[in-house]
Amino acid sequence: MFKKIAIFGVGLIGGSFALALKRAGAVRQVVGVGRSAASLARAHQLGIIDVIGASVPEALRDADLVLIAAPVAQTETILAAIKPHLQAGTVVTDAGSTKSDVVAAARRALGDRIAQFVPGHPIAGREQNGPDAAIVDLYAGKKAVLTPLPENAPHAVARVADAWRLCGAIIHQLTPQEHDRVFAAVSHLPHLLAYALVDDIANKPHAELLFQYAASGFRDFTRIAGSSPEMWRDISLANRAALLDELDGYVSQLAQLRGLLANADGVGLEAVFANAQQARHAWIRSIEAAEQQSREGGD
Amino acid sequence: MFKKIAIFGVGLIGGSFALALKRAGAVRQVVGVGRSAASLARAHQLGIIDVIGASVPEALRDADLVLIAAPVAQTETILAAIKPHLQAGTVVTDAGSTKSDVVAAARRALGDRIAQFVPGHPIAGREQNGPDAAIVDLYAGKKAVLTPLPENAPHAVARVADAWRLCGAIIHQLTPQEHDRVFAAVSHLPHLLAYALVDDIANKPHAELLFQYAASGFRDFTRIAGSSPEMWRDISLANRAALLDELDGYVSQLAQLRGLLANADGVGLEAVFANAQQARHAWIRSIEAAEQQSREGGD
Repeated sequence: MFKKIAIFGVGLIGGSFALALKRAGAVRQVVGVGRSAASLARAHQLGIIDVIGASVPEALRDADLVLIAAPVAQTETILAAIKPHLQAGTVVTDAGSTKSDVVAAARRALGDRIAQFVPGHPIAGREQNGPDAAIVDLYAGKKAVLTPLPENAPHAVARVADAWRLCGAIIHQLTPQEHDRVFAAVSHLPHLLAYALVDDIANKPHAELLFQYAASGFRDFTRIAGSSPEMWRDISLANRAALLDELDGYVSQLAQLRGLLANADGVGLEAVFANAQQARHAWIRSIEAAEQQSREGGD
Repeated sequence: MFKKIAIFGVGLIGGSFALALKRAGAVRQVVGVGRSAASLARAHQLGIIDVIGASVPEALRDADLVLIAAPVAQTETILAAIKPHLQAGTVVTDAGSTKSDVVAAARRALGDRIAQFVPGHPIAGREQNGPDAAIVDLYAGKKAVLTPLPENAPHAVARVADAWRLCGAIIHQLTPQEHDRVFAAVSHLPHLLAYALVDDIANKPHAELLFQYAASGFRDFTRIAGSSPEMWRDISLANRAALLDELDGYVSQLAQLRGLLANADGVGLEAVFANAQQARHAWIRSIEAAEQQSREGGD
């Protein structure tokens, strides 16, 4: 049970966290903090937050838990504003999509209070944003990755894990570096590739003709190119080193495929396609089995 | 009204064509021809075809229309088998995903009968295959692209267009070269890119860890990597020149993006992402408007 949780950023991520904890009866009071008075008022109206924090010290007073769910680029500023008012019993976590940069920012901003910061990343989202996009089930059955620091006390990590578990999430732990390498490969690179393809087509002189014939395969492939450009600019920059590595690996892979195609090497092409198809089928089967298990476990 | 239609390949594409024409009451008899006796028997059982063609001459006798809906690599063999038995009043079409190579194969196989061949490509599909995957509505509201030849008589083109229109499709015309350039960009390249990404990840030593964290964005981006490796090997080879051009353009685009990322050029990255997002939103809006219009037109 949490007496008081302060949430910086009451949009999709922070708002859904609040709604889920409230439904679980796990929090007495949620205080919202943010740059937009309109978003805070809307979150209050929707019952996401109980109180609009008039100031950082007031929001932090006697809070058990602080969640930073603002755009990643603001994390350091928020942590620096928090530090002077951070009580010994308060645990701070975040929901940023990258972790090494957040940890570096937290070390700079929090200094000797770093032990109170447990970095996190819930793997859930929707295409909409803002308080109106928040839904109580956003995290149900989804992964919440924590990337604890050597300084974190076990009970601080447990406290953050408890909160996400109460939202229905399944807890995973990685180091910040592992986290960033993994998500560079399975999330950040695909976003870059999808944006690149749509931009490439949109810039061609016959773009209109091309889009006219694009069908459902193209629609799914490029769905992530509908995501927020600002958010993905920040993620790309924050995870630049790992993303460059993944991009270079992928470009080498394309160079090999180009060679097979140029040589009309049907056997080689089919081997690559078949390996990919098989790996994807195995992955889909494992996801479906996990979903089945989680449904059965929930009954 | 068609008296008799012969379909070579009674799977998803050919089977759905037959079902739609039957529902429209537009064909008296459908004869199926294929390499697999089991598929033909199943198509007969499902009411897709009325008769299993015992031989090519028998299947072709007095047919108004022949549809070749077998894998593209078989087109030339089938056309060569058809030629000696092709009556003057019969129009032949196909459903292949590439057109320049099909036209070249048709010219070789049909020689002076080429005027009777109207190349086509219905833009519709499902992940399943075979007669059991055939559905009556597969082509409803979808595009059917015809790529007529200079030799085709207008009435032959109209006959093929009529058949697809009776299936609910909307007729478009392109030259075979235009067709192949368009689909290299919006379909064949995305398939190659999706296969390449999944293969790249599957071959990494920590593939299992990576797949564990892949989420819905990855799932949609790679859906087309679940497609048939044999089919996409054939399409890639058949449309090799256009696909190599598109791949080279895309790799240049990635090189530019890499430069922006390496220079931490946030403004440049955001400009690419925003252009892509905007183009995709405009495209989705135009699709939805067209769907809306087609629903209203159908009422």
